[in-house]
Amino acid sequence: MRKFEEKTIKTEHIFQGKVVQLQVDDVELPNGQYSKREIIKHPGAVAVIAVTPDKKIVFVEQYRKPLEKSLVEIPAGKLERNEEPLTTARRELEEETGYTTKELTLVTSFYTSPGFADELIYIYLAKDLVRLEDPPKGDEDEFVEVIELTLDEAKKYVKDERIHDAKTNYAVLYLESSGLLK
Amino acid sequence: MRKFEEKTIKTEHIFQGKVVQLQVDDVELPNGQYSKREIIKHPGAVAVIAVTPDKKIVFVEQYRKPLEKSLVEIPAGKLERNEEPLTTARRELEEETGYTTKELTLVTSFYTSPGFADELIYIYLAKDLVRLEDPPKGDEDEFVEVIELTLDEAKKYVKDERIHDAKTNYAVLYLESSGLLK
Repeated sequence: MRKFEEKTIKTEHIFQGKVVQLQVDDVELPNGQYSKREIIKHPGAVAVIAVTPDKKIVFVEQYRKPLEKSLVEIPAGKLERNEEPLTTARRELEEETGYTTKELTLVTSFYTSPGFADELIYIYLAKDLVRLEDPPKGDEDEFVEVIELTLDEAKKYVKDERIHDAKTNYAVLYLESSGLLK
Repeated sequence: MRKFEEKTIKTEHIFQGKVVQLQVDDVELPNGQYSKREIIKHPGAVAVIAVTPDKKIVFVEQYRKPLEKSLVEIPAGKLERNEEPLTTARRELEEETGYTTKELTLVTSFYTSPGFADELIYIYLAKDLVRLEDPPKGDEDEFVEVIELTLDEAKKYVKDERIHDAKTNYAVLYLESSGLLK
């Protein structure tokens, strides 16, 4: 759908980083007037709702520099160039949690913040987790701690805002409403 | 929680826009090594799950320049400086939909993309909507179309990815699981 399309008049490339790019587009609005749009380009991401055989949910706690605090989140990671989301999902699950699974199924996908960023995140469900004997190592500059919680514990974490991000709040609501952990 | 804290060694301010700021922080990792973090500062936002007396959900369709397409979303907007989220929520509901309500209740809040941005969004529920006779005008450079959907229609929009962003996917799942529209 291209309703209310904003035509690009000019693009100014401001920053090209390792994770994000920033550009400012001059646009022509539907009424013929002009405006500017600040746009973050992001490679996209995956996240995994991972459930153990004893019906616990696997989270990772990590420091989030933009917030200057750590959050408890479902395992996730950025897409590498030309990588299938399903491949990224399996890799991040194994690297961050030490678990693997035969089957990952897509639950949903969504843009995290469509007003200023193009980041799209794919959310998978992993049941029947099996512990890897020799899990692959993750990124050198990532420090994460694995935390396994029951659904009730996870709901308490949401209330206390230790779980406090879009994909993880969605995951907890999804598990609650699906009845999967009953 | 400050587990795995990353200490700032240096901050480079790259861009200060109308909506976002971009900075790159040099950080010291928990193992004593160094890395860089690309950080988007954002003022934060609100969104409103708005339900009419005949149990329809009120959405707005708008063009999202970062995606080069339009999405159907729950009404939302950025926080103005020093504005209470509840005030922003009422203003955005009235400007974007022409409805108001006596009571807005907080459903949840979450960071949209904590890996690179500090945007926090507050999600409110508005029931008992009343149509304003003379609704306030919104931003000059915003073009939105109001769409009212039943829950089943909204679920179809999610499936077809016309609804495809974090806050709105969350809202549809919330309304489905709460039983509010039964």
